[in-house]
Amino acid sequence: MTDTAFLSSILSPDRVSTTTADRDHHGRDWGTPPEEAAPPDVVVWPESTAEVSAVLAAATERDIPVTPFAAGTGIEGNAVPVRGGISLDLTRMDTVLEVRPEDAQIDVEPGVVGAAVDEAVAAHGLFFPPLPTSADMATVGGMIATNASGKRTVKYGEVGDWVREVEVVLADGSVLTAGTRAAKSSSGYNIRDLIVGSEGTLGVVTRATLALAGRPEQTRVGRVTFSTLADATDAAADIVGSGVDVSAVELVDALSARMVNAYIDADLPERPTLFLEFQADHGVDEEVDFCRAVLAAHDPTTVVLGEEAAGEDVWEPRRELADAVRAYYPDRRSLHAGDVAVPLGSFSTLLERIRALSERHDIPIPTFGHAGDGNVHFDVLVDPTDDDAVDTAERVYDDIVTTGIDLGGTASGEHGIGRGKRGFLRTEHGDTGVRAMEAIKDALDPTGTLNPGKIFP
Amino acid sequence: MTDTAFLSSILSPDRVSTTTADRDHHGRDWGTPPEEAAPPDVVVWPESTAEVSAVLAAATERDIPVTPFAAGTGIEGNAVPVRGGISLDLTRMDTVLEVRPEDAQIDVEPGVVGAAVDEAVAAHGLFFPPLPTSADMATVGGMIATNASGKRTVKYGEVGDWVREVEVVLADGSVLTAGTRAAKSSSGYNIRDLIVGSEGTLGVVTRATLALAGRPEQTRVGRVTFSTLADATDAAADIVGSGVDVSAVELVDALSARMVNAYIDADLPERPTLFLEFQADHGVDEEVDFCRAVLAAHDPTTVVLGEEAAGEDVWEPRRELADAVRAYYPDRRSLHAGDVAVPLGSFSTLLERIRALSERHDIPIPTFGHAGDGNVHFDVLVDPTDDDAVDTAERVYDDIVTTGIDLGGTASGEHGIGRGKRGFLRTEHGDTGVRAMEAIKDALDPTGTLNPGKIFP
Ligand SMILES: Cc1cc2nc3c(=O)[nH]c(=O)nc-3n(C[C@H](O)[C@H](O)[C@H](O)COP(=O)(O)OP(=O)(O)OC[C@H]3O[C@@H](n4cnc5c(N)ncnc54)[C@H](O)[C@@H]3O)c2cc1C
Ligand SMILES: Cc1cc2nc3c(=O)[nH]c(=O)nc-3n(C[C@H](O)[C@H](O)[C@H](O)COP(=O)(O)OP(=O)(O)OC[C@H]3O[C@@H](n4cnc5c(N)ncnc54)[C@H](O)[C@@H]3O)c2cc1C
Repeated sequence: MTDTAFLSSILSPDRVSTTTADRDHHGRDWGTPPEEAAPPDVVVWPESTAEVSAVLAAATERDIPVTPFAAGTGIEGNAVPVRGGISLDLTRMDTVLEVRPEDAQIDVEPGVVGAAVDEAVAAHGLFFPPLPTSADMATVGGMIATNASGKRTVKYGEVGDWVREVEVVLADGSVLTAGTRAAKSSSGYNIRDLIVGSEGTLGVVTRATLALAGRPEQTRVGRVTFSTLADATDAAADIVGSGVDVSAVELVDALSARMVNAYIDADLPERPTLFLEFQADHGVDEEVDFCRAVLAAHDPTTVVLGEEAAGEDVWEPRRELADAVRAYYPDRRSLHAGDVAVPLGSFSTLLERIRALSERHDIPIPTFGHAGDGNVHFDVLVDPTDDDAVDTAERVYDDIVTTGIDLGGTASGEHGIGRGKRGFLRTEHGDTGVRAMEAIKDALDPTGTLNPGKIFP
Repeated sequence: MTDTAFLSSILSPDRVSTTTADRDHHGRDWGTPPEEAAPPDVVVWPESTAEVSAVLAAATERDIPVTPFAAGTGIEGNAVPVRGGISLDLTRMDTVLEVRPEDAQIDVEPGVVGAAVDEAVAAHGLFFPPLPTSADMATVGGMIATNASGKRTVKYGEVGDWVREVEVVLADGSVLTAGTRAAKSSSGYNIRDLIVGSEGTLGVVTRATLALAGRPEQTRVGRVTFSTLADATDAAADIVGSGVDVSAVELVDALSARMVNAYIDADLPERPTLFLEFQADHGVDEEVDFCRAVLAAHDPTTVVLGEEAAGEDVWEPRRELADAVRAYYPDRRSLHAGDVAVPLGSFSTLLERIRALSERHDIPIPTFGHAGDGNVHFDVLVDPTDDDAVDTAERVYDDIVTTGIDLGGTASGEHGIGRGKRGFLRTEHGDTGVRAMEAIKDALDPTGTLNPGKIFP
């Protein structure tokens, strides 16, 4: 048990807690099943960069692990303090500091929630494009630390692409500003993009300057079904490859469609389906027509697009999907929420492989995700009380992720490595790659204070 | 003098040279005046990753500096071997390895010239958007190492934004692959973007996978003049801020316009001028109209845009500018080729400051550059034999770069720090920032073999 008295000398005592409720809340994220919870010894809620710095310096001196924690919506146990110590909760640093429309930028504290960024800038005709589906809960700090992305990433890129400058506290308590507010730079090493995606293992983000885009004036949506999965994935690749100005291309497979039908009591075609969105200031109808022509080459069975979709909430099934999957098999659990990304030309191959594994082992694996980025999400659904089935499912999961890496892709398109995917880091990056990452970790956090037990095998 | 025998056991002897001609060629880049040349002891031309690895391992063992050298078009002395040793010339590794239209990607060796990338992919309806003006000479390795950018960066981003995967040889000879061919990733530390812009000080790029965009079918161009510089810069910011789909917004100030007139014997208005380009698959004429409306609010004095520009080579003056500046004052030299970038909202302020300094000290400073990115290029033109004038010009140059940093910008928008801008690294990144960069350098190149004497103050 950590001696926590020193913390009360840094933060007001009401912002230091060792209660079971607070510790339990900080011992899990969305991807952590109850039996894998790992509560910290103590939770602290800093309210300024100076407090973060003081906590880190003191913890490093005492050799106590510190794990940043925000909304806890991570999927890979990223914020779970597996070695105990301090959970550094950033959610009280939630002030929008400044909106600068003339630069199309916003400065925020790390605990600002994604949706609040959007609210703060909407009045200026701006928006923050790469928000994840979890934007109502997830924080800017968490999104930066995981390099999150969302449905509009196909057009606009990842969260990391929109981070201009970050203030970061290193493990020894020193504070640096990485990046620049200019649109581009070639000045020294890109520490900003090293912090992006580093999952709180290199430094704590205490302020961020984000770039913004003009809020598009026109939006069109659509939903298109196909008889085969290959038709759907080929169509998705073709839309992106043809340069259609599309702002979202999401895939839902036939099994997922069936789950959504059951959940929202609808009668959508239970076939592979693409959900489309188009956004621009003008000319979206031309893009929709252009897209229609591309789709025609892939034998769609139903097309509800543009005008036809106008009165209807065609995206509802996509939004309900996560809950629908959870509800469909009450006796089964998703072993892992899969998140693999491959080059676009290999997306069909990956999905075929998943389907083949599902059939061979008779394990339901609904697949869906950001088809325009070659990013698939999948759930390997298994009865958690059946040890043999769990073993098989583990192997199937490994096989899928490894296939993605073999196809030139990545073990994680957007959720990070966290605790769950450490086994794949070496497969993807090789011995030299992992050694280089370890050397960088040692360089910036030589005592290993920050979020130990994550990312590295 | 380095004992070079060990090199001949790694490379065929015709690819190891100590001749004065070869050493001299590798002792300067485009930004190096003759008196600052620093020839290496020996030049080698590897032809494979294995040879690069063997040279680096042997040099590190012997404590001999190695400086990567490609086309030598760098502006900040980036490739100049200031501590002697080995110049590692990558230009013979110039094979286009594979074009994968289905992924919109190309794999190349580092010595492939920018224009050759474009040639290799044009037949597939693809192009590589961030090419710099020097694309006919500059190599992929050099562009990655400096995070180069070009006129289309305003729409498409920097070279770094288009690098998917790099093979890198570290100083000890070990080889790693950083990044992924997937469109996005959250898997481990982003070593790829750390290599980008590291100017050959962290590793040698021996292969790169670059992303490509669809080659736009329509292009429109334009040239617009204004009575004041503020009108021109405000118009540039407004065009970008309004979300006009513009692919280039370049500024040339009145003095630069006069220099071009003299050089190509034309009679362009000698006023602040914006050069515009629009590219898309369809709808460019609508964008041109949209842009025309935005321009109208900034009192343009002449507008030659879209249809009006159709028969004319309106961009010629912009292309001739670099040569025109050199020719205009035969007795003066550009002390430094300036390259500062600031947030868009501060672009006018920076340009006003440059003009004020020019007037106060009576030093001609033509300004031009990538106005849509807030990136200005400028030349502080001075008689190199007048010591007092050179002193003043040095202070003016420092003042401009420092002003850019104070405005939230960066000491280098695209040319890198090299040898020339080391003095500004600390101003921009602070003590902690520089210390973090030094720690990363030590982590990946503990012997300091690679390109010593660069970037760091
Ligand atoms: C319903 C649902 C939908 C989702 N949809 C998406 C999606 O579309 N795209 C996507 O990418 N992800 C998605 N996720 C995953 C998750 O929302 C993201 O990973 C998100 O970025 C996590 O943010 P958070 O604030 O919850 O961070 P947490 O989960 O609290 O922490 C995540 C990681 O960030 C670190 N961290 C947090 N704050 C800081 C800080 N200030 N400085 C340094 N490190 C910090 C933590 O240590 C941890 O490693 C979804 C999750 C859910 C539950
Ligand atoms: C006329 C002209 C116009 C220009 N226009 C632009 C422009 O529009 N935008 C812009 O950004 N720049 C511009 N530049 C600058 C220059 O072209 C770029 O910096 C370019 O990226 C340098 O490429 P290079 O092949 O000449 O590299 P070099 O000058 O040979 O080397 C540059 C740096 O890269 C390193 N390097 C080279 N190859 C490798 C490798 N394989 N691995 C690791 N490190 C390596 C070197 O060590 C050095 O630090 C211009 C230059 C000229 C002369």
